[in-house]
Amino acid sequence: MIIGADYYPEHWSVSRWETDAAMMEEMGLTVVRLAEFSWSKLEPEEGNYDFSWLDEALNVLSAHGISAILGTPTAAPPKWLMDKYEGMYSVDGYGRIRGFGSRRHYCFNSPDYQKAARRIAAALGAHYRAHPAVVGWQIDNEFGCHNDEVCFCGHCQREFRRWLKSKYATVEELNRAWGTVFWSQTYRSFDEVIVPGYAQCDGESTRNFCHNPGLLLDYMRCRTDNVAAFLDLQVKALKEAGCSQPVTHNFMGNYDHLDYFKLAKGVDFVSWDNYLCHQWQQSSYGDAALAHETMRGLKQKKFWVMEQQSGPAGWSVMGDTPRPGQLRLWSWQAYAHGAQAIVYFRWRACLFGTEQYWYGILDHDGVPRRRYREIGQTAKELTRIDEMLAGGGPVSEAALIKSYDNAFSHQFQPHNPKFDYNALLRSYYEGLMQNGVSCDVCSIDDDLSRYKLVILPAFQLVTPPMAKKLRDYVSRGGHVVLSFRSGAREWNNQMTERTLPGLFREITGVTVSEFNSILYGDPIPVKGPFGKSEASIWCDLLEPDTAKPYAVYGGDYCEGAPAVTVNAFGKGKAWYVGCDLGADAMELLLGDVLKDAGITPPVSDLPKEVEAVSWECPDGQKVLFLLNHGKDPVSVPVSGFSKELLSGLPAAQTLTLEGYGIGVLT
Amino acid sequence: MIIGADYYPEHWSVSRWETDAAMMEEMGLTVVRLAEFSWSKLEPEEGNYDFSWLDEALNVLSAHGISAILGTPTAAPPKWLMDKYEGMYSVDGYGRIRGFGSRRHYCFNSPDYQKAARRIAAALGAHYRAHPAVVGWQIDNEFGCHNDEVCFCGHCQREFRRWLKSKYATVEELNRAWGTVFWSQTYRSFDEVIVPGYAQCDGESTRNFCHNPGLLLDYMRCRTDNVAAFLDLQVKALKEAGCSQPVTHNFMGNYDHLDYFKLAKGVDFVSWDNYLCHQWQQSSYGDAALAHETMRGLKQKKFWVMEQQSGPAGWSVMGDTPRPGQLRLWSWQAYAHGAQAIVYFRWRACLFGTEQYWYGILDHDGVPRRRYREIGQTAKELTRIDEMLAGGGPVSEAALIKSYDNAFSHQFQPHNPKFDYNALLRSYYEGLMQNGVSCDVCSIDDDLSRYKLVILPAFQLVTPPMAKKLRDYVSRGGHVVLSFRSGAREWNNQMTERTLPGLFREITGVTVSEFNSILYGDPIPVKGPFGKSEASIWCDLLEPDTAKPYAVYGGDYCEGAPAVTVNAFGKGKAWYVGCDLGADAMELLLGDVLKDAGITPPVSDLPKEVEAVSWECPDGQKVLFLLNHGKDPVSVPVSGFSKELLSGLPAAQTLTLEGYGIGVLT
Amino acid sequence: MIIGADYYPEHWSVSRWETDAAMMEEMGLTVVRLAEFSWSKLEPEEGNYDFSWLDEALNVLSAHGISAILGTPTAAPPKWLMDKYEGMYSVDGYGRIRGFGSRRHYCFNSPDYQKAARRIAAALGAHYRAHPAVVGWQIDNEFGCHNDEVCFCGHCQREFRRWLKSKYATVEELNRAWGTVFWSQTYRSFDEVIVPGYAQCDGESTRNFCHNPGLLLDYMRCRTDNVAAFLDLQVKALKEAGCSQPVTHNFMGNYDHLDYFKLAKGVDFVSWDNYLCHQWQQSSYGDAALAHETMRGLKQKKFWVMEQQSGPAGWSVMGDTPRPGQLRLWSWQAYAHGAQAIVYFRWRACLFGTEQYWYGILDHDGVPRRRYREIGQTAKELTRIDEMLAGGGPVSEAALIKSYDNAFSHQFQPHNPKFDYNALLRSYYEGLMQNGVSCDVCSIDDDLSRYKLVILPAFQLVTPPMAKKLRDYVSRGGHVVLSFRSGAREWNNQMTERTLPGLFREITGVTVSEFNSILYGDPIPVKGPFGKSEASIWCDLLEPDTAKPYAVYGGDYCEGAPAVTVNAFGKGKAWYVGCDLGADAMELLLGDVLKDAGITPPVSDLPKEVEAVSWECPDGQKVLFLLNHGKDPVSVPVSGFSKELLSGLPAAQTLTLEGYGIGVLT
Repeated sequence: MIIGADYYPEHWSVSRWETDAAMMEEMGLTVVRLAEFSWSKLEPEEGNYDFSWLDEALNVLSAHGISAILGTPTAAPPKWLMDKYEGMYSVDGYGRIRGFGSRRHYCFNSPDYQKAARRIAAALGAHYRAHPAVVGWQIDNEFGCHNDEVCFCGHCQREFRRWLKSKYATVEELNRAWGTVFWSQTYRSFDEVIVPGYAQCDGESTRNFCHNPGLLLDYMRCRTDNVAAFLDLQVKALKEAGCSQPVTHNFMGNYDHLDYFKLAKGVDFVSWDNYLCHQWQQSSYGDAALAHETMRGLKQKKFWVMEQQSGPAGWSVMGDTPRPGQLRLWSWQAYAHGAQAIVYFRWRACLFGTEQYWYGILDHDGVPRRRYREIGQTAKELTRIDEMLAGGGPVSEAALIKSYDNAFSHQFQPHNPKFDYNALLRSYYEGLMQNGVSCDVCSIDDDLSRYKLVILPAFQLVTPPMAKKLRDYVSRGGHVVLSFRSGAREWNNQMTERTLPGLFREITGVTVSEFNSILYGDPIPVKGPFGKSEASIWCDLLEPDTAKPYAVYGGDYCEGAPAVTVNAFGKGKAWYVGCDLGADAMELLLGDVLKDAGITPPVSDLPKEVEAVSWECPDGQKVLFLLNHGKDPVSVPVSGFSKELLSGLPAAQTLTLEGYGIGVLT
Repeated sequence: MIIGADYYPEHWSVSRWETDAAMMEEMGLTVVRLAEFSWSKLEPEEGNYDFSWLDEALNVLSAHGISAILGTPTAAPPKWLMDKYEGMYSVDGYGRIRGFGSRRHYCFNSPDYQKAARRIAAALGAHYRAHPAVVGWQIDNEFGCHNDEVCFCGHCQREFRRWLKSKYATVEELNRAWGTVFWSQTYRSFDEVIVPGYAQCDGESTRNFCHNPGLLLDYMRCRTDNVAAFLDLQVKALKEAGCSQPVTHNFMGNYDHLDYFKLAKGVDFVSWDNYLCHQWQQSSYGDAALAHETMRGLKQKKFWVMEQQSGPAGWSVMGDTPRPGQLRLWSWQAYAHGAQAIVYFRWRACLFGTEQYWYGILDHDGVPRRRYREIGQTAKELTRIDEMLAGGGPVSEAALIKSYDNAFSHQFQPHNPKFDYNALLRSYYEGLMQNGVSCDVCSIDDDLSRYKLVILPAFQLVTPPMAKKLRDYVSRGGHVVLSFRSGAREWNNQMTERTLPGLFREITGVTVSEFNSILYGDPIPVKGPFGKSEASIWCDLLEPDTAKPYAVYGGDYCEGAPAVTVNAFGKGKAWYVGCDLGADAMELLLGDVLKDAGITPPVSDLPKEVEAVSWECPDGQKVLFLLNHGKDPVSVPVSGFSKELLSGLPAAQTLTLEGYGIGVLT
Repeated sequence: MIIGADYYPEHWSVSRWETDAAMMEEMGLTVVRLAEFSWSKLEPEEGNYDFSWLDEALNVLSAHGISAILGTPTAAPPKWLMDKYEGMYSVDGYGRIRGFGSRRHYCFNSPDYQKAARRIAAALGAHYRAHPAVVGWQIDNEFGCHNDEVCFCGHCQREFRRWLKSKYATVEELNRAWGTVFWSQTYRSFDEVIVPGYAQCDGESTRNFCHNPGLLLDYMRCRTDNVAAFLDLQVKALKEAGCSQPVTHNFMGNYDHLDYFKLAKGVDFVSWDNYLCHQWQQSSYGDAALAHETMRGLKQKKFWVMEQQSGPAGWSVMGDTPRPGQLRLWSWQAYAHGAQAIVYFRWRACLFGTEQYWYGILDHDGVPRRRYREIGQTAKELTRIDEMLAGGGPVSEAALIKSYDNAFSHQFQPHNPKFDYNALLRSYYEGLMQNGVSCDVCSIDDDLSRYKLVILPAFQLVTPPMAKKLRDYVSRGGHVVLSFRSGAREWNNQMTERTLPGLFREITGVTVSEFNSILYGDPIPVKGPFGKSEASIWCDLLEPDTAKPYAVYGGDYCEGAPAVTVNAFGKGKAWYVGCDLGADAMELLLGDVLKDAGITPPVSDLPKEVEAVSWECPDGQKVLFLLNHGKDPVSVPVSGFSKELLSGLPAAQTLTLEGYGIGVLT
């Protein structure tokens, strides 16, 4: 297990470095990430490189046994560079230049910027390819942060047209795929095609979703490809410079404006930045767990947390301070879900700059306090446990399918203001969690035969081969859960002409005869084996063909109509959940789904706020992590375990966890 | 009675057309609207026309007895056209071009666009002037939709200056009318006059109401004239091409950013688009009824519904699905209020484009379901009843005055954040409705002598001739109701220098000694014959001169001051309602007003949620439509009727209406 | 005592002027403010001056004993001027020109505009320097109104660079002060430095606070200097033209986007515009009182109210009408807090223009009504009392420190969305008020030795000399109250590297070991001598070094930790208040603070909603103003007074005040 910190020696006097390194060593940190925003220090003016300060920092750190991941500094190009070349700033939907003064102010498609990025990466690579303390590279920083995944400049328009031409070959094919006959938007050549900027519309927004849905989707797909190309050019520059260290990029968990499955192909391992509470968001532990699963799923292997929250955080305002125990708990959660390294952001709160309020392990005064001690304890615990469980990792019999193409489509046209694709995924994920079952997050392109159960919420864009894959999966004995809107669209974002649920109609054995988006009306009651719940976003009215009703509506005009059905198909089963449900109903529904699929939770009656993660070690040893996300102590009924690894004591029938406490059973 | 659908054959394969036409015929549809967004199909490149597909569609349709209204396609100019000429896009208040990708992206005042619009209208007219299946024309589509009634480009500035010069002759007169001496805004020539775009102000909005109120009002008046000119040039092009079919435009009901009385002069008949629930709005049945009355009032004759809701609707999200019975009910409501044709939007939900979620009679899969059956039933019912009531139509003894000039003024300066001119009109209209009385909606320029009662809420802009007209009306025995803010301004949007209610002071016999806009304070109690109510927006404190108090304030500092007065003047009476009131008080107040005016409701004790509309046939036969807008059955006490026409049964003392049910008594 | 009105003779026919002047005289008004928006009347075209109308107005007014303050009209440059020179409009953060049509549409740094402003001021000065009726000058109008304190045009960028060069001499020093090493924002020359306009960021706002905090702060400081220079150039023009009348500018009370202490240096006396209820805001009487104190504090002497509310007010909507008695009460409040003149805005509501709804003493119809009578009565009362108390004025033993540098810093990064520096100042001020104690508002640079108690809420930016000044003050016997965030930053807006509360750690005798910004969490209980309260914004967890706990947290993870401490230091005491508190707890806490500091309130058990202001006259006579801001009568227990001056009756043990009533005890 690797524990580290994000460190900015360039923000502090050289005389402090030795103190910092010694404190890190004392805590048990063995890695730092360095330099990812230091372009103006590395290349103060064009072609004039200065690596001396970084060399010196690496010397000080490695003397304390600390190695480094180096970041390429392209997330924050310096002023001299932006001044020198025109057309490198990114441009918003209104055509306004997103100017200097923050970060990520560049266009991925600017040839001049690409050249500059390649050059600085190559220079860094050439200097550090053989440095013993440099153990990896991070390319840029958080692609897509601050909505910079979109840009509407001339470069981007040109690239989009080129991308479309490459995809469609003829403009007639593009017109057909998008349905540009609607509102006379037919293009006569690729050179006429627009980027989806400001257009006549009722609202006021920098993103305009009144555009043609096919165009919107292709634009987002193209954006991912543009970013991937930018990532690739840097990776290539490093490799060509002779670097053999592994390369990563720090992803952003549940962020879904870029297709992370595609981006992840460009890196050797995935890392991500994990904050549970800051200025803009408080995440549930389910959010965080789902993000971990997704990050592990990108390359189907363990990952790094490249930035792990270590204190209160924000830019203009701060989120609540993590409570005693939470920093430890969140670190354990990361570990349980497959983090092989945890790097805390940041070593010490910065005295200046936009992130003055983003606190680190140390406060501005550099004095070690509670957070320093708690993280130090955590580092030692995790190192010890990781030795005990060497080679082990999370295992699951269920998979949740995440599709970025579907995410994009849902973003443009979310069906209902309360609909959110991520939230829907989370509601299924949390339903499994409440049953004590963790799952993998997969792409539809992954091998699903490993799983007893596959869940595809709101999987509306679907191709015939995908549908066939699922058909085969079910007919061979797999269980699937589909929700409302599944099968509703073609892959080009057109609505399907098939009767709903479209390509999934056969395996689900139902017809969606009508639906109701609950916009102005009241929630609609739902009754089933889970008792009473209600739909507050969406109701599909189902007509079972071969399926059996599992739950029905209990009010309004759809009283008695099936809301949830299950269909035996081949050797497997397909569930169709026609509406959203409350958390309790979701837990009970998925409990029945799991039972049907032959998946047995490791713990029965898992208390609320306790998360269970199952591991298996190479020797077959089963391990269960129990994480209490509540602030109060709780008792978990457990059986079949021999030992609690943290205490080293034999396992009893009940394990009591302190508030924010952790147990590891085997 | 004409029943039809909005149909887009160009969105579907030719092989489907025959199926569609046959299904339409089966349902009882006899008309379609076609082609209003198909410019790029009709003229794929400049001067290269292709009407063959439309000819073919007309052939298929007319073989099934279906004729067509053709739309000129100018609401969606194609890309080739926008690319070819500069300065055709409309421009927002910040000077930003509202670009390609949606619709209505053109400037009404662009000479190049006017030329292009004239050309395509002429070409269509020349081709279809004698086509037997083409029974009418629709010009463009929903002028003003997406706020496109305003534009701030150079053409529009030039036109505004020309318009002002024509109106005021000298800039001194303009300066006087607007009071530009305020804040040194004096203009020395018409060439200095601005359009009201972005200016120094506290807020952030694309519409800036900090501008001079006189300028704002004239700008809106000019806009109506600009749009009317654009409408006229197309009508002229059709007529000059030899078309003799009647021409319409599809208006938007209660929309009030263009003066519909003026625009309606340019068309042969009025049509409008009627949606009660979609992404952006849920309308009450009072909203819809008021819109119908207004549409009938524009030319004081029956109208078409050119787009009648036929399913759930929205762009990015969808409104609630109309409940079983509601599509029928809303169609009957349209008919009762004077629709002579109802065209459902749209035949079938489109697979692609911005309006993928705007459902039609058919779903995306083209399979007939509940909505198809319900609309088919409705088509047959309405056709049958219309034969029975041939030549009949709604009659009313009361008129509600709608003034677009006043609407504009209220939009810029609504007195109170809760004040809304349309909502105030609706509160009076619904007060009548609750008494079972429907009314006409008129312009102040219409002949009012036909009415026993005229209501003018918040009629603040008023000219001396208008005041005299009302004075004469009342002195000859008419009854009028005026509300707070009536008479407060001159026609140029200046405040009146007269003591309030200004030009209405004589007929109302009151003085407004003070007023109170309820912004941060609590609502103020009002007591009267209606019991207790409260004002939550506005209170005028009244000093009766010759009037008698009808209701008084019951609290705060205005305790005991008259709130509502009535004044006998000549042979008539003038009511002054100094505050807003709750719905119940409004119903009772207007009950007293009606009684005073000698108007007897056709039904006493009309239940809530039931709407009554009175008709008279050429032979003098009285007919009463009863519409239950509630979802539960309700009994209506009726007397004096002989027959219920839908069932054909004799009328009893009580008529029971199903939820969303309809009765027609004679 | 001077009572007057803001008068716009240019808005009315000349024939009305005599009537107005006579009515003013009858009311007791002796001064008007004139001409501050009349540039286009004074100079209808370049160089062509016309003072005749103003001469005539002054003649009519002075015949009734009314003299005038003349405004330079630079807040509203005419169209001809804006058209003639380029680059005079101000520009927002997106680079958009804030165009013509409102007011304040100019850039302070435009050389052409500066020249034009100098010329009109000089011309006015030359004409009126010796006019017997002209008794003063107002420069421009409400600097900073409509956010015009910021501009992002080329002039402003150039001025900012010049200002920075003058401040920092070398760009290395600027880079150090701002910490531009963060995110590679290092500048190589002053010519590279930006203004903080639109930049890559998550949100959408015309102000972008993602910029470097040091840059943001210097930009705001520079803005104040730019505005001060614009003020000075006009003052200089007047003086050079031979004017010897005193000069003022009308400030905006609690507005804090410009450093009023700096701006006030440029004028001979301070005046301000006092509205308690209008479209955008309803102020508490504490707000208004604090604004009065601040205005008196700017130059530590009495001030004018140049615009005092006289009716309902707003642009597009209106605030509630002041209740009978409130206009009088608010005037008395102004007087008690040190107004030596009250000028009511405006004489009569304007018939046209943006401020049609900003009512004056007279309504649009010019008929005197309630407000005319109430203000007339007030004018006479105040004149009489002012003669009785000649030379007297408010006295205080406590000071509240207001720092605009701190205000700016808090605006950019308010710590917590609920944090507002002004609101925090007000909560301390109102805590004193509730104890019957009024205080002075001072700059940290003022002489504090006059006070027994000095309160510095959230004084985060602090220099070593300031800290030393406070250390000396306390050690010599002064009492200070500091709050959370005090001492947290350096003067350049960097976070302090010292352990918190930084430079205040010694005198407060506490260490802030941790803090909690309450963003998503629940409020945290606080227990102390004041009973129970709660923190809902911020909690500092305190470790007393030499201090004693006064209150502690009563829940969450900080249960039992000190929340408020008091430390004996030298001969004085320093309180540290680590959290926000409810109003009741604040009152009781400050009661203890006052007692400790030896400040005795003039009245014990002051009822809620009653304000007490203490005066002293040159002869040592003590006077107490009691103002009932409640609408109901209230009895105030008073003792030690001999007479109530308004009634002339002997003082009893209890003084009963009517709703909105006033008492003056001596």
